[in-house]
Amino acid sequence: MKLYVVGVGPGDPELLTIKAKRILEDSETIFCPKGGKESLALSIVEKVVDIKNKRLVFLNFPMVKTKDEKQSKKLKETWENLAKKILTEMTNVSSFITLGDPTLYSTFFYLYDYLKDKIDIEFIPGVSSINASACRIPTSLGIANEKIAIIPANYEVDLKEFAEKFDTIILLKPNKLFEEIKKFFADNNFQTYYIKRATTEEEEIYKNLDEVPEEAIEYFSIVIAKKEKF
Amino acid sequence: MKLYVVGVGPGDPELLTIKAKRILEDSETIFCPKGGKESLALSIVEKVVDIKNKRLVFLNFPMVKTKDEKQSKKLKETWENLAKKILTEMTNVSSFITLGDPTLYSTFFYLYDYLKDKIDIEFIPGVSSINASACRIPTSLGIANEKIAIIPANYEVDLKEFAEKFDTIILLKPNKLFEEIKKFFADNNFQTYYIKRATTEEEEIYKNLDEVPEEAIEYFSIVIAKKEKF
Repeated sequence: MKLYVVGVGPGDPELLTIKAKRILEDSETIFCPKGGKESLALSIVEKVVDIKNKRLVFLNFPMVKTKDEKQSKKLKETWENLAKKILTEMTNVSSFITLGDPTLYSTFFYLYDYLKDKIDIEFIPGVSSINASACRIPTSLGIANEKIAIIPANYEVDLKEFAEKFDTIILLKPNKLFEEIKKFFADNNFQTYYIKRATTEEEEIYKNLDEVPEEAIEYFSIVIAKKEKF
Repeated sequence: MKLYVVGVGPGDPELLTIKAKRILEDSETIFCPKGGKESLALSIVEKVVDIKNKRLVFLNFPMVKTKDEKQSKKLKETWENLAKKILTEMTNVSSFITLGDPTLYSTFFYLYDYLKDKIDIEFIPGVSSINASACRIPTSLGIANEKIAIIPANYEVDLKEFAEKFDTIILLKPNKLFEEIKKFFADNNFQTYYIKRATTEEEEIYKNLDEVPEEAIEYFSIVIAKKEKF
């Protein structure tokens, strides 16, 4: 019995790797994480893999802040229950699909500690939404000796301390702190970019945070800020 | 006339995306960057794309430090000459292939400023060697509110200032400063990993920098350092 944790890329179904496609075609069971009503990862996969003979097992991941102390005990139970469900529902070859790349902020890692000693697990890397976003501008994230910081912005964030040391700052989930982020970079000589749902049909690209309309500001977007060179 | 800048992934030919494969199959001309004797990117591509009817144009990129002031004028001429060669040799559909993802330290960005106003260029993201390395451990690079720093270590680097603020530090080209890096993280409660040429036939993986033999220390490797959680 083997579980593949497969990165399905940022949204464009053609950005699945040849390997991801092959492994999903070989899998009898596909575990599909979902936060809201549907599984975004599955909506990508079903465009390149015939899923009609697959066993689809949906896993409901709660959309809460995982570092919230009050939630912590309840969340641990949730992860444990989801891990148990995987152990129960697994067949000979199974895949857990995840947006982008599995090592960048994938919910699968909440389950990994429960599973790693019990089953054989292999991770299949995917194109991350960060790289896809930069390609769509296009801009280099780093070249030569440039340093890059990747920062989730759905918690608190002190941009000043990063702005001095880094050439490129990538902010994930920037929606809640958007006005603060916009003001900071405008005052500090950074070129900013905003990319919503890169490579999907809902993609929107702005080459300056000043141009982003309020209705485009949402969780599934990325801010790339690059220090202006003088 | 269109030029695609195609990320071919970290080494395993199956980690090309479906899109990269299709575009390379459609390209009459493939520009292949090389530093030493051969083009590593081409050695990946030729395993999944039939190149016998392609026009292959090799571009020699000098292996020197691009931030070296003395080299600077000569390098600018080199980039300009390589860009001119692309303009001269381009056919209707052409691709420039690059290891990993084009936006992470790809040499193509040295040419981009010369080309961007003259021709239509589209970037195709790829699986980066960073994500592939983390998948091979396997380890998460970041989850929830964790912050990630990506730092080229072939120049000088002050690890102390990053160790305080970041949960994960990724060091590229760590060979020259290897002993210094090893000592720093051992003294500062980080779990370290060393991955040489992830997903290639020459791949080597070490789950602690202490275990890395001298002969495995080279340019095409990545150190991942994760803060121990107490």
